[in-house]
Amino acid sequence: MIGVVVRNRPTLGAEQAGILAALGVATVHEAQGRTGLFLPGIAPIQQDRAIAGAAVTVLAQPGDNWMLHVAVEQCRPGDVLVVACTTENKDGMFGDLLATSLMARGVAGLVIDAGVRDSAELRRMGFPVWARAVHARGTVKATLGSVNVPVVIGGQWVKAGDAIVADDDGVVVVPHATVDDAIAAAQMRMLNEEGKRRRLAAGELGLDIYEMRPKLAAAGLRYLDELPNE
Amino acid sequence: MIGVVVRNRPTLGAEQAGILAALGVATVHEAQGRTGLFLPGIAPIQQDRAIAGAAVTVLAQPGDNWMLHVAVEQCRPGDVLVVACTTENKDGMFGDLLATSLMARGVAGLVIDAGVRDSAELRRMGFPVWARAVHARGTVKATLGSVNVPVVIGGQWVKAGDAIVADDDGVVVVPHATVDDAIAAAQMRMLNEEGKRRRLAAGELGLDIYEMRPKLAAAGLRYLDELPNE
Amino acid sequence: MIGVVVRNRPTLGAEQAGILAALGVATVHEAQGRTGLFLPGIAPIQQDRAIAGAAVTVLAQPGDNWMLHVAVEQCRPGDVLVVACTTENKDGMFGDLLATSLMARGVAGLVIDAGVRDSAELRRMGFPVWARAVHARGTVKATLGSVNVPVVIGGQWVKAGDAIVADDDGVVVVPHATVDDAIAAAQMRMLNEEGKRRRLAAGELGLDIYEMRPKLAAAGLRYLDELPNE
Amino acid sequence: MIGVVVRNRPTLGAEQAGILAALGVATVHEAQGRTGLFLPGIAPIQQDRAIAGAAVTVLAQPGDNWMLHVAVEQCRPGDVLVVACTTENKDGMFGDLLATSLMARGVAGLVIDAGVRDSAELRRMGFPVWARAVHARGTVKATLGSVNVPVVIGGQWVKAGDAIVADDDGVVVVPHATVDDAIAAAQMRMLNEEGKRRRLAAGELGLDIYEMRPKLAAAGLRYLDELPNE
Amino acid sequence: MIGVVVRNRPTLGAEQAGILAALGVATVHEAQGRTGLFLPGIAPIQQDRAIAGAAVTVLAQPGDNWMLHVAVEQCRPGDVLVVACTTENKDGMFGDLLATSLMARGVAGLVIDAGVRDSAELRRMGFPVWARAVHARGTVKATLGSVNVPVVIGGQWVKAGDAIVADDDGVVVVPHATVDDAIAAAQMRMLNEEGKRRRLAAGELGLDIYEMRPKLAAAGLRYLDELPNE
Amino acid sequence: MIGVVVRNRPTLGAEQAGILAALGVATVHEAQGRTGLFLPGIAPIQQDRAIAGAAVTVLAQPGDNWMLHVAVEQCRPGDVLVVACTTENKDGMFGDLLATSLMARGVAGLVIDAGVRDSAELRRMGFPVWARAVHARGTVKATLGSVNVPVVIGGQWVKAGDAIVADDDGVVVVPHATVDDAIAAAQMRMLNEEGKRRRLAAGELGLDIYEMRPKLAAAGLRYLDELPNE
Repeated sequence: MIGVVVRNRPTLGAEQAGILAALGVATVHEAQGRTGLFLPGIAPIQQDRAIAGAAVTVLAQPGDNWMLHVAVEQCRPGDVLVVACTTENKDGMFGDLLATSLMARGVAGLVIDAGVRDSAELRRMGFPVWARAVHARGTVKATLGSVNVPVVIGGQWVKAGDAIVADDDGVVVVPHATVDDAIAAAQMRMLNEEGKRRRLAAGELGLDIYEMRPKLAAAGLRYLDELPNE
Repeated sequence: MIGVVVRNRPTLGAEQAGILAALGVATVHEAQGRTGLFLPGIAPIQQDRAIAGAAVTVLAQPGDNWMLHVAVEQCRPGDVLVVACTTENKDGMFGDLLATSLMARGVAGLVIDAGVRDSAELRRMGFPVWARAVHARGTVKATLGSVNVPVVIGGQWVKAGDAIVADDDGVVVVPHATVDDAIAAAQMRMLNEEGKRRRLAAGELGLDIYEMRPKLAAAGLRYLDELPNE
Repeated sequence: MIGVVVRNRPTLGAEQAGILAALGVATVHEAQGRTGLFLPGIAPIQQDRAIAGAAVTVLAQPGDNWMLHVAVEQCRPGDVLVVACTTENKDGMFGDLLATSLMARGVAGLVIDAGVRDSAELRRMGFPVWARAVHARGTVKATLGSVNVPVVIGGQWVKAGDAIVADDDGVVVVPHATVDDAIAAAQMRMLNEEGKRRRLAAGELGLDIYEMRPKLAAAGLRYLDELPNE
Repeated sequence: MIGVVVRNRPTLGAEQAGILAALGVATVHEAQGRTGLFLPGIAPIQQDRAIAGAAVTVLAQPGDNWMLHVAVEQCRPGDVLVVACTTENKDGMFGDLLATSLMARGVAGLVIDAGVRDSAELRRMGFPVWARAVHARGTVKATLGSVNVPVVIGGQWVKAGDAIVADDDGVVVVPHATVDDAIAAAQMRMLNEEGKRRRLAAGELGLDIYEMRPKLAAAGLRYLDELPNE
Repeated sequence: MIGVVVRNRPTLGAEQAGILAALGVATVHEAQGRTGLFLPGIAPIQQDRAIAGAAVTVLAQPGDNWMLHVAVEQCRPGDVLVVACTTENKDGMFGDLLATSLMARGVAGLVIDAGVRDSAELRRMGFPVWARAVHARGTVKATLGSVNVPVVIGGQWVKAGDAIVADDDGVVVVPHATVDDAIAAAQMRMLNEEGKRRRLAAGELGLDIYEMRPKLAAAGLRYLDELPNE
Repeated sequence: MIGVVVRNRPTLGAEQAGILAALGVATVHEAQGRTGLFLPGIAPIQQDRAIAGAAVTVLAQPGDNWMLHVAVEQCRPGDVLVVACTTENKDGMFGDLLATSLMARGVAGLVIDAGVRDSAELRRMGFPVWARAVHARGTVKATLGSVNVPVVIGGQWVKAGDAIVADDDGVVVVPHATVDDAIAAAQMRMLNEEGKRRRLAAGELGLDIYEMRPKLAAAGLRYLDELPNE
């Protein structure tokens, strides 16, 4: 659907967002059954930032950032701007002026399947970005896309209002309807991991903690003292 | 043209270089009509460095850094060494010894369509580098290339003496003859952006500042309250 | 050879490891005749770490980190875990729990031809990693691979017990039998470079230090004052 | 949703399928507003085949073709098997045995975001395939995926029963609900193009047929007799 | 230079074009000192076609084929249309309608750093194309580029009127001023190769024909009967 | 090991070669436990050719085909020339003259981790090639590599005299010592597949032939009539 801006969409509570950001991408992805994770091509341009927020989605045309300006108006505090493109494109659709505008509206960060520029300035401003590329290439404002329609980005299907979690490991989407389930499962997983972390730090082996030895033996794993001659 | 070293070429004043570096890649690229920008594959190996200088160009053979040694002699304080390759190659053509030599001559930095090595040491030395890859692979000194002939690098045509600007966003070339025009246009653009930045920071929308609403409407943009059922 | 764990393999002395790490990837690679260097796709996820140790090798299946757990038990203090994959795969086979376990055993670091996750936490823990990708994608434990069999990784042939050196420039393997030779040659090279570094820093040209001028002339290099009209 | 097979889904009439295949990927993609087109990484392994059919979707695990066997049973004559993967993978999930089974069921072809093997035999059999890679790498049958759940493939969202059109230009998906609209619009477009083709073949210019000259002039296009000196 | 169409440019005689096409890309590239060859990313969409002609150059915007329509009018019989893009883009800028128009004007073929579509039809029509990708993605007509200005494409600098040679091996540009020299050198090379081909076919070794043995010995090549133990 | 030519190496009988070529890459790779398969980047430049032979290995330098000439002398009828490179390189190291020379010696084909040129002529001559790229870029003869030392190519470890099998699916290496075992296992596999092929062609399901249903059920696969609302 091209040429459409959808105004209404679900929101994400600030508390939920804080919890999701703290849980992190890897844990949330695992907790919801290993779904929702973006492919690794969209990567952070900074280190040590973790955010979560409701997606404001943009479908942009290659080399054209017109719809980003339209999308700013639809953003509310805590949102994450999620920009997909109708085709592969690395042009610098986003820079410090748009970041200034988004920060003024309290937006938590940007996830974009295209390029960004003013990257040093974006880091100085503290506005976190996950992008396909850093590229200064300028864009035009000539062709319509859409705002808040469902988009495919990073190999995932993202609907406006879905929760986006992004950190140094990448980006994961949590469908709006399952945010609470995902949080509950992720917190359970964290608790569980905490116990394992202590045991592993004390020198216990995963082989024993996870009781892998019998399964490995059943699968036919053989221990040899020496490498046989090939 | 292979096997040639050209001695004379235009220079870039220290003041011009300082201004270009401060303006930065994105602004200069825009100011000269969105031309001259390198494709994103050649990227900085450090953060927060911005340089500008006159290009000393090198056309090197794959896996062969002989011409870099020849080029050092042609470098003057403030120059930027720009190394293209006759074919795609990521070998480590440049390391800390060549950097030591270039720093001794006051060279501002290196832009290379190949690999570099001793990357940690290069950062420690403070010698800024934009490269295709970090790769320790050693090179030979067996086949001639050229110095200060025009080269294609990063999808751009660079002549010796052209101004090179490089920062966290990448690299842009400004033809020698148009440096002053580019600076003037870029400074105008900066001034113009400064006003917009303040308005955006205060919460005004780009939609209004850039008067986009009528054009968007004319292009047929529709606002819907809800996403229609697909 | 699939489904095998080999227990015995050569070790690397702590002193040798310390020397190799200090010499660094570029120097060691050159010193052993420009061999053993990994292709640049496997890169550090942190800066300014240099390690060396004996390889514990793993051959893993795509999307399956079972063998990593098996390999942990085979690791001794100072080892480097080297994980190859039977096919191209970027899934997040390794995270903070496995790192905790390896740190508890004194392992020096990880080199993996796949993805890792919990990357921010790995940096915080100080566990150094060289990986194909940062990717949170979860893995299963379903199919056997092997531990301490020879593997191909980064375009190199690595046998258990070979010395692995890794730093900001990448990764190099030194066959176990030639570690002492490689160290001796690399130290000689370092000494030799030190003298050159001082001369280059003082402004002498590599053209003169390496006596390149006659060879360049013999190869036909011509110096022109001006670029001829094309 | 992992571990699920959905039995019911929409179908596509043989006549609709025939029309869509004849219209072709480029025309159908244009006719539905430039949507639904797969990114170019998934390409035909043969030339001069055009198919259309209802999608039977598979979500497979990397290196694991278990779900393809499950999906065969869900296929009906004229269907197109569409295989997405939970992560990037080029293993050879599909070969001549599975093709034999699908041909026995009257399946029109395969679209797969992974590798295929027995490629020469597949061409000999006349079973058309669009794949990410030709790669003989064998796969296991160890981990569940799903059949007939919505999947993301080629940057598009595909639901079971959606129409898939594939030819030498690639692959496009038409949502089930809009198949008739897409056909009508595409046929209109074809008619329109036919007239233009005759005029262009007769030497008329697109500049005149599409009345571009005034718009180009308004955009500022200048005609010069000679290239100005740069 | 954006927004400009240059009318006048050099031509290439039909006889010269025929000779260049027969000589082929590899021979011409070698004959002019290993220059002018395009990087391998731009590849033929058909087999067994070899063309040569004078370049009509286009600088296009991403996702926008407006300038191709402008360029058609500038084409004369025997020309080759050469389309560069201001940024990386694989959209389907060219299809059977534009090919119909170019064939009506006697154009020899297309070289494009972007995508093409209707690829099966282009092969049926016999219009030869070298492209970055086959991709049906539709384009707009919204932003100016230029025609017959110098462009960078395939890592080469191409000026309007330069000779373009393209065959199964790729594309090479011959500067207009040196076409006759390149032809002469290439014909000499062909003659020379013909004699060598006969000797090689008769079983003589290149080692002897090219008198390599002394140079190999001087470089230190050693012949061993057996592989030494590593 | 650089600068070495090893004269003696194992051979492969003509009958074994014929059997391996007929079995094909996919079957041989499976039969030897899913090992030895090259990564998909090295692909055939022709269709419908299948070869097998003993490897004559070459380790070449980037942009330098000197060692290929040295290797020709080491080739015997039925051999396959296998060219690895010390670093990533796509230059056109091989063309019709070298092919003429190899055909004169009865060599079965070429597998090369670099570029080849004269590709149309190679197809006309009927000399089969598997290459990283088609690229006309010329090479020098300046730096030593080696012949008949073990090399890494396509992610595999290949020793001189190992059997190489190559067809439309890619390339697989069979260690010399296990050729007979591989043939026996592959023939068994073929027989086994033949029976399955007939049953599948008759409409039986793999689900039943391979008795997958209980395992799928045990793994938790659920059949639903309708897709649940997300």
